[in-house]
Amino acid sequence: MSLILVTNDDGVNAPGIKVLYNAMLELGRPVIIAPAQDNSAASHSLTMDRPLRVKSIKRDIYAIDGTPTDCVTLGIGKVLEDFPALVVSGINSGGNLGDDVSYSGTVSAAIEGTMLGVPSMAISLAGEQPFYYETAAEIASKLAAKILNKGLPRDVLLNVNVPNLEQKDIAGVKYTRQGRRKYDDAIKETFDPWGRKHYWIGGGTPSWDNDGGNTDSVAVSLRYISVTPIHLDLTNYEALDYLEKNW
Amino acid sequence: MSLILVTNDDGVNAPGIKVLYNAMLELGRPVIIAPAQDNSAASHSLTMDRPLRVKSIKRDIYAIDGTPTDCVTLGIGKVLEDFPALVVSGINSGGNLGDDVSYSGTVSAAIEGTMLGVPSMAISLAGEQPFYYETAAEIASKLAAKILNKGLPRDVLLNVNVPNLEQKDIAGVKYTRQGRRKYDDAIKETFDPWGRKHYWIGGGTPSWDNDGGNTDSVAVSLRYISVTPIHLDLTNYEALDYLEKNW
Repeated sequence: MSLILVTNDDGVNAPGIKVLYNAMLELGRPVIIAPAQDNSAASHSLTMDRPLRVKSIKRDIYAIDGTPTDCVTLGIGKVLEDFPALVVSGINSGGNLGDDVSYSGTVSAAIEGTMLGVPSMAISLAGEQPFYYETAAEIASKLAAKILNKGLPRDVLLNVNVPNLEQKDIAGVKYTRQGRRKYDDAIKETFDPWGRKHYWIGGGTPSWDNDGGNTDSVAVSLRYISVTPIHLDLTNYEALDYLEKNW
Repeated sequence: MSLILVTNDDGVNAPGIKVLYNAMLELGRPVIIAPAQDNSAASHSLTMDRPLRVKSIKRDIYAIDGTPTDCVTLGIGKVLEDFPALVVSGINSGGNLGDDVSYSGTVSAAIEGTMLGVPSMAISLAGEQPFYYETAAEIASKLAAKILNKGLPRDVLLNVNVPNLEQKDIAGVKYTRQGRRKYDDAIKETFDPWGRKHYWIGGGTPSWDNDGGNTDSVAVSLRYISVTPIHLDLTNYEALDYLEKNW
């Protein structure tokens, strides 16, 4: 029976992870190892300045007072009895599209799984409350079955974004590339009780460069499920060639 | 006069950032906007759950109670009077090689700069105490001059790793690709005063897949300065093609 590590960045009590756990029950033995608290925008942080406690909540559910990356590192290294066949991270309540992938705790957990040699997938619902977790669960289960069956190329993970719609309104699945976010100045100014200015980052409405289509954000806006194969190697080989010749 | 945003993840009081600031003085007007505290392994976290304060330390030096990414976002959006010509992040006391780039606050600051449209560079000293910051400063200044003069391809930043040696012991500069870290199980078990087991991540000695040479880690081990052009697009195009045809 395939051992499946289930994690997220919204925390062990988030509704999305329970739905994901249930979806994985058809495919093997899912074990939830997730942050005790909400870790949104934790990116790929590792906690190294303090020890971490693994709390057993009930059978096959563990909470760690750390980040999604901590959960995968400790999950694979210490908590699970065997090496897992799959890491799935999500279902995130909110999309992880384009450049935002770089901030994403959800995706980072899948990156960590990949680094440790486990085929991995991140799955997010792109949209806002109320969330249609079941729509994401259905595709998560299909893709996980495919990964367990066919594997993934070395160093590649899947970043899946599902339009936040009822299943019947989904147009299909598209394999996409990562889009590019247009900068928007989402910084709010505020003042503390002593009148000192503070800045609060967030709340902007992201907009996207379409870049000729076939990006994750374009697919989702057209009601397609976007599946982007991403990898760990950040090298830009074209630029490497350019620098070697011209610098 | 070129405005240069100088940041890091070791904090505004770290020795490396002062050396970097001084090196940039030859090229323009550097402004330090850095975390108030050490932020190592903060990765690309953005602080969105609380407001951030920008504290002016003295002329052209600011501290923010946040992450390196926060510093670049607020620096470009709010603190600097003009759009900067360059973001430089470092000099980190410790290397940012191979897959570890993904955890790196130093590199994340440069990624954020790139996202916001500013040519950016991260610079780290690969090694341990005592650090030869001046060796890194010399190459930082040369590369920054080149970037200001020639620019960088769109969406590309430079991740520079300098062997922690005296200048006279450096073999030269190599343009490299990002290497791959071999997993080592660097998790220490410890117990709290109540006898409960905890885990502490860190302290392992990283080892590297050489992958036929020309990686950042190989270059540094041969006493070369490694310059890796990295980019924001995580898409693996080969895998995209494969999925489109075979899934």
